[in-house]
Amino acid sequence: MVTAEKGAAEWLAVAKDVADKLAVDAAERDRANETPYAEVRLLKEAGLVTLLGPPEHGGGGQSWDTAYRVIREVARGDGSIGQLLGYHYLWAWAARLVATEAQIAAVEELYTSENYLFGGAVNPRDGDLAIVEDGDEIVYNGRKSFSTGSKVSDLTVLEGVLDGTEDHIFAIVPSAQEGIVFHDDWDNIGQRLTESGSVSITGVRVPWASAAGYVDKEFRPLTYNTLNVPAIQLVFANFYLGIAQGALETAAAYTRGHTRAWPYGGDNKESAAEEWYVLDAYGDLQAKLWAAEALVDKAGAAISRVLHAPREELTPQARGEIAVLIAAAKQRVIDTGLEIGTRVFEVTGARASASKVGLDRFWRNLRTHSLHDPVAYKRREVGAYTLLGELPEPTWYT
Amino acid sequence: MVTAEKGAAEWLAVAKDVADKLAVDAAERDRANETPYAEVRLLKEAGLVTLLGPPEHGGGGQSWDTAYRVIREVARGDGSIGQLLGYHYLWAWAARLVATEAQIAAVEELYTSENYLFGGAVNPRDGDLAIVEDGDEIVYNGRKSFSTGSKVSDLTVLEGVLDGTEDHIFAIVPSAQEGIVFHDDWDNIGQRLTESGSVSITGVRVPWASAAGYVDKEFRPLTYNTLNVPAIQLVFANFYLGIAQGALETAAAYTRGHTRAWPYGGDNKESAAEEWYVLDAYGDLQAKLWAAEALVDKAGAAISRVLHAPREELTPQARGEIAVLIAAAKQRVIDTGLEIGTRVFEVTGARASASKVGLDRFWRNLRTHSLHDPVAYKRREVGAYTLLGELPEPTWYT
Amino acid sequence: MVTAEKGAAEWLAVAKDVADKLAVDAAERDRANETPYAEVRLLKEAGLVTLLGPPEHGGGGQSWDTAYRVIREVARGDGSIGQLLGYHYLWAWAARLVATEAQIAAVEELYTSENYLFGGAVNPRDGDLAIVEDGDEIVYNGRKSFSTGSKVSDLTVLEGVLDGTEDHIFAIVPSAQEGIVFHDDWDNIGQRLTESGSVSITGVRVPWASAAGYVDKEFRPLTYNTLNVPAIQLVFANFYLGIAQGALETAAAYTRGHTRAWPYGGDNKESAAEEWYVLDAYGDLQAKLWAAEALVDKAGAAISRVLHAPREELTPQARGEIAVLIAAAKQRVIDTGLEIGTRVFEVTGARASASKVGLDRFWRNLRTHSLHDPVAYKRREVGAYTLLGELPEPTWYT
Amino acid sequence: MVTAEKGAAEWLAVAKDVADKLAVDAAERDRANETPYAEVRLLKEAGLVTLLGPPEHGGGGQSWDTAYRVIREVARGDGSIGQLLGYHYLWAWAARLVATEAQIAAVEELYTSENYLFGGAVNPRDGDLAIVEDGDEIVYNGRKSFSTGSKVSDLTVLEGVLDGTEDHIFAIVPSAQEGIVFHDDWDNIGQRLTESGSVSITGVRVPWASAAGYVDKEFRPLTYNTLNVPAIQLVFANFYLGIAQGALETAAAYTRGHTRAWPYGGDNKESAAEEWYVLDAYGDLQAKLWAAEALVDKAGAAISRVLHAPREELTPQARGEIAVLIAAAKQRVIDTGLEIGTRVFEVTGARASASKVGLDRFWRNLRTHSLHDPVAYKRREVGAYTLLGELPEPTWYT
Repeated sequence: MVTAEKGAAEWLAVAKDVADKLAVDAAERDRANETPYAEVRLLKEAGLVTLLGPPEHGGGGQSWDTAYRVIREVARGDGSIGQLLGYHYLWAWAARLVATEAQIAAVEELYTSENYLFGGAVNPRDGDLAIVEDGDEIVYNGRKSFSTGSKVSDLTVLEGVLDGTEDHIFAIVPSAQEGIVFHDDWDNIGQRLTESGSVSITGVRVPWASAAGYVDKEFRPLTYNTLNVPAIQLVFANFYLGIAQGALETAAAYTRGHTRAWPYGGDNKESAAEEWYVLDAYGDLQAKLWAAEALVDKAGAAISRVLHAPREELTPQARGEIAVLIAAAKQRVIDTGLEIGTRVFEVTGARASASKVGLDRFWRNLRTHSLHDPVAYKRREVGAYTLLGELPEPTWYT
Repeated sequence: MVTAEKGAAEWLAVAKDVADKLAVDAAERDRANETPYAEVRLLKEAGLVTLLGPPEHGGGGQSWDTAYRVIREVARGDGSIGQLLGYHYLWAWAARLVATEAQIAAVEELYTSENYLFGGAVNPRDGDLAIVEDGDEIVYNGRKSFSTGSKVSDLTVLEGVLDGTEDHIFAIVPSAQEGIVFHDDWDNIGQRLTESGSVSITGVRVPWASAAGYVDKEFRPLTYNTLNVPAIQLVFANFYLGIAQGALETAAAYTRGHTRAWPYGGDNKESAAEEWYVLDAYGDLQAKLWAAEALVDKAGAAISRVLHAPREELTPQARGEIAVLIAAAKQRVIDTGLEIGTRVFEVTGARASASKVGLDRFWRNLRTHSLHDPVAYKRREVGAYTLLGELPEPTWYT
Repeated sequence: MVTAEKGAAEWLAVAKDVADKLAVDAAERDRANETPYAEVRLLKEAGLVTLLGPPEHGGGGQSWDTAYRVIREVARGDGSIGQLLGYHYLWAWAARLVATEAQIAAVEELYTSENYLFGGAVNPRDGDLAIVEDGDEIVYNGRKSFSTGSKVSDLTVLEGVLDGTEDHIFAIVPSAQEGIVFHDDWDNIGQRLTESGSVSITGVRVPWASAAGYVDKEFRPLTYNTLNVPAIQLVFANFYLGIAQGALETAAAYTRGHTRAWPYGGDNKESAAEEWYVLDAYGDLQAKLWAAEALVDKAGAAISRVLHAPREELTPQARGEIAVLIAAAKQRVIDTGLEIGTRVFEVTGARASASKVGLDRFWRNLRTHSLHDPVAYKRREVGAYTLLGELPEPTWYT
Repeated sequence: MVTAEKGAAEWLAVAKDVADKLAVDAAERDRANETPYAEVRLLKEAGLVTLLGPPEHGGGGQSWDTAYRVIREVARGDGSIGQLLGYHYLWAWAARLVATEAQIAAVEELYTSENYLFGGAVNPRDGDLAIVEDGDEIVYNGRKSFSTGSKVSDLTVLEGVLDGTEDHIFAIVPSAQEGIVFHDDWDNIGQRLTESGSVSITGVRVPWASAAGYVDKEFRPLTYNTLNVPAIQLVFANFYLGIAQGALETAAAYTRGHTRAWPYGGDNKESAAEEWYVLDAYGDLQAKLWAAEALVDKAGAAISRVLHAPREELTPQARGEIAVLIAAAKQRVIDTGLEIGTRVFEVTGARASASKVGLDRFWRNLRTHSLHDPVAYKRREVGAYTLLGELPEPTWYT
């Protein structure tokens, strides 16, 4: 049983344990492509789902800094499950990002005491959901192409625009209800167990009182509200990092255990681990990965600090600099991770291309999600800051 | 009906036509992973299987230079089928590489007039097959881990060592016979339709007269015999090149047809094809691919010249320089092709990661076969030539 | 004495001889940074300056294909001198690009029989020179920031716009005249001996009859006129290639002659040439360079064909496809050459950084001239062709 | 006047101030290549030379973590001076690395109160200096190829082997003495102001009492003694990082102030800073540099911790893991820095290749010193750790 007294190191050990369990059959589960009920149960039983939740309701009471490392660790074992957990943390924090104190308290008590997993139907490249008022309630209708978590989630975050206004309203609703239909149509080359299929929202009712951050039907914006994008972008960077670490570790185990030295090179090596090019490649990839990790950690410390500070304190300048740092970290992890996902085969050899080894899943997982938004625009953001001191305008992607 | 009068350009048009047909459902067939009977029939009906065969028996009478381009073209549509065809060409040439004039004539007549496809059970990293003499016959026994073609082939090339000697003996036998059992166990992440599974050889009998190149049970070696390795390595480079071309073309069609401009970049582009980074990436990848292709073509012209020249004329120096050139070409194609296979997603976008698009097959196909032998040793070969003027010793891989 | 009977191979041998002489003290001459009178004399005495000139006047009568290889070969020994020669070839061809038959005949006789070197004051990023009419003459005035050749040239190509019109007029004038002042202010980090300083043009008079291509003060444009840009861009690519080849060869000689094996690696190598990473790097760099070279050669063959064909035959489509090919070749040579210029130090070692070794000149030479126009736009050109089938609009840079 | 009360942030501000002063004429001073007396005076007057010295003698009393950042900051302004300062810090710590408590106290008092700069004659690829005993003294003789600091140093660290033993003995002696002749022969392409020329040591006498760490002519080794190599390797990484930062900042200032938009691209940009490829390149390079920096900082924190902890506590395991981390950091900084040193020209344009701009000095500086020992062996060290868990054996380079 998880207690609030655990420190960050202990939680990382828990996450490592979960990751090790997931890694055992990650390749098989990737091929089977089934709804990850058992995997989510594992996260819940380990206490990871309530890691950020208040200790008084049984939550871990941890910081985002730790949450990011936990996401990374879980993704090391299974990229999909790392993504599910990471998205959940962000949605679980959505109340803190935009809601009132009372709403925050209610949401945190609910999800923590019930050990609930969040999903979200918020993909911004689709049109917004439509909201109409109906007395004390607002009613959501529409469709979203991607909704990570979907039917393994207990709660779903909705976002829409109120008819006749430009007001965006977030709300948290139970996932299992008639008005929400998950179409179960996620069949992509990677992150296959994330249940990121499309969803139809039909007449989902939410009391005005639950419209996040709205008081008397009005919303008072803070810079803090816009932390959702840098925070989720760093969630991405962390599960990408975990995927890349998983690739390198899985490959190293394979090289040690299975890869034969090349007999035609004239060197009479006894083991592939004596081959210069094998050691060289591991050293090159590891150094790159450590550098990416160090930058991700730096960014994690920076955003964790402001996520846990009083909301009013955050300035646009501080928000912008963190967003730029995260944009940089994301680039480095993607570049490095794709290189690792590709080059691990060179140090494991021809037989490692067997489907049952499943060594391609790391590249497929990273390749798939890293298309979320064009990394070229992240380079441009960092460039505009370096060259001109410009900070990115908060949007759904920056 | 194919006639000997067709020139290289016409054969390339034939190959293009075949490739276009294969491309239509290449992604689906990759997933289905069934034995490519229909695909081989397509090759046969197009006359491509007998491209190198003597015109007097209905063959195309073409040069290797053309054969390499045909392999590439077919691989553009389907990497697996390009590999099957490329291996076939090499095995079909095996007689010319080592056999006597009479044996060559017999083999070429047989396979050309019958429109037969070759496979081969010659993977050198397994032990050699064992050969024992039995009167006028030799008898092969053993097992090979990989045998491209296997049950879609009509003829199989065997290689073994005669008991009590160090004599390697090649022979060509019908694939469909009791002593040859194809285990149908090729399930790898790429080149899935190549039927490259393992094979057991049990008591397969060959007349001494068919032991390739043996006259009175003795073999008189020529440098020409060792062209098998550079020739097949360039077969590899050509179907890798075709795979990379297929990736770039498939991506370009997708970008033009489906990819939306990024709406959050502040540029108000109407189409992804106006995005700077998209044009930049296509330009970068295309330039790299053209450079690799130009080197592959140069190597193809060089080896084609010696493959079609009198066998006695080939010097170790000329053979070595061609081998180095091919080693260089292979490096460039692999590096470039993997980069293309990875980066095409950046210019097609998130939805291109759907399984049904199948855009990952190019990376998987190239990644799989490019592990055939460590490319690091190819770099070393080229380096030893550049730095020290050393030529690679002919082995099973150089 | 050079005769018209020499073939391409013999001219390449001549160029190699010149390059070998230049290479002996290239590092010293780079540091000394003096006007390359002796170097130009060497080119003239070898007959290279009139390589493209008509045999009846003592010229070599060679094709551009050969000229490109000669530029490359000379640049292998000294990048600056390769550039001087390459620019000269283009200016010497300027008449053929735009002038009348009679003008071509006169120019070719003049420069070939006199063994004259061309320079040019045509940098398009400055404003055009101003031209005013004065009876039967036109008069040029203005200033250009860069004028390769300048005071070592015998003839200078001018370009300006006729007052009150949008007519661009080229003319060829003696370099040594009062109205042309070379400011001798080229002091850049590379290509130091190209005399690329600024020039003032004051009242330089040219008979209307010498206004290239003008008949009765009118110019009838052909697509062929616009070959100047692809032709010179491929001149660039060829001397870049020569610089890169020079770097690799110079490094290899140093590694063989001077570099010690690393004694702390635990491998007991006797020579640096036994070090895996040294062989690997040479192999990697050589393969890349060969690929770039193969593409440059392909582009050279393509443009040489149209440069020597009847001018009227050239279509915009053919011109555009050649321009794209050259844009691709240029990219590959620059990328590869800069990598070689940087990495050669890793395989030569710490002592190779001594100024007297001068191994940095290759990087400096290539880095300097490859900034002529942004290579990013060359990527975009190739990308627009690959993705959209667009051909580059002829401009001063495409 | 420097006081012991300054904190790390204040020291970094001091270093920034010094760097800004050095940057003003760094390009000119690089070309002039004169002995950096004024530059060393600047360091001394700023109090940076005694940053690590005990406050009771007027030293800064700072940690290595801060010292590394100060080195980096100074190198941002002038790579050579960053190197001089970094080497000095290591030599100033040499006593702590190997000497007795009494020797440490004496050395630290001496150099701190006198504001002395250290140099060192310890290049391990030459033979060791020869030491003979003469009563209570030991006498050093020999020659070293490289001795950073040389005639601008006040104290020089010697290292030799005692005749008839395998005992290595370090000692600190005044640089200005008859027995030490600096040959003033450092003329290399980069780090030109480091006075890294050769030195002859003839009959330099040291009391046995000053033989570092020797008690009764015997040395009791600790793992801590071997921290010299990781500590100096991280000094390298820090001034490499500073050089790379200087390159990027210098380039950005140039782009903003001087680079014109490309007029032929069809985009009608007003400034180069609007060019997509310019922003993209700055973003790419900055992200890479931040990642390298984050890893260098992580390594700095790790080694600083053990450098300031009790010497006996350091285990071989901890030492080895730090050495591996530093080996990785060094790789990343070198790769990234060379890429930055090369690519800054692409975003500054052709005119930035003028010698007076001096933008090539960053590449030359980094290229020169990064050859100190082959980075390939650093990759192998990291690879052996990742693949096999092996720690590097302490040697002169690991």
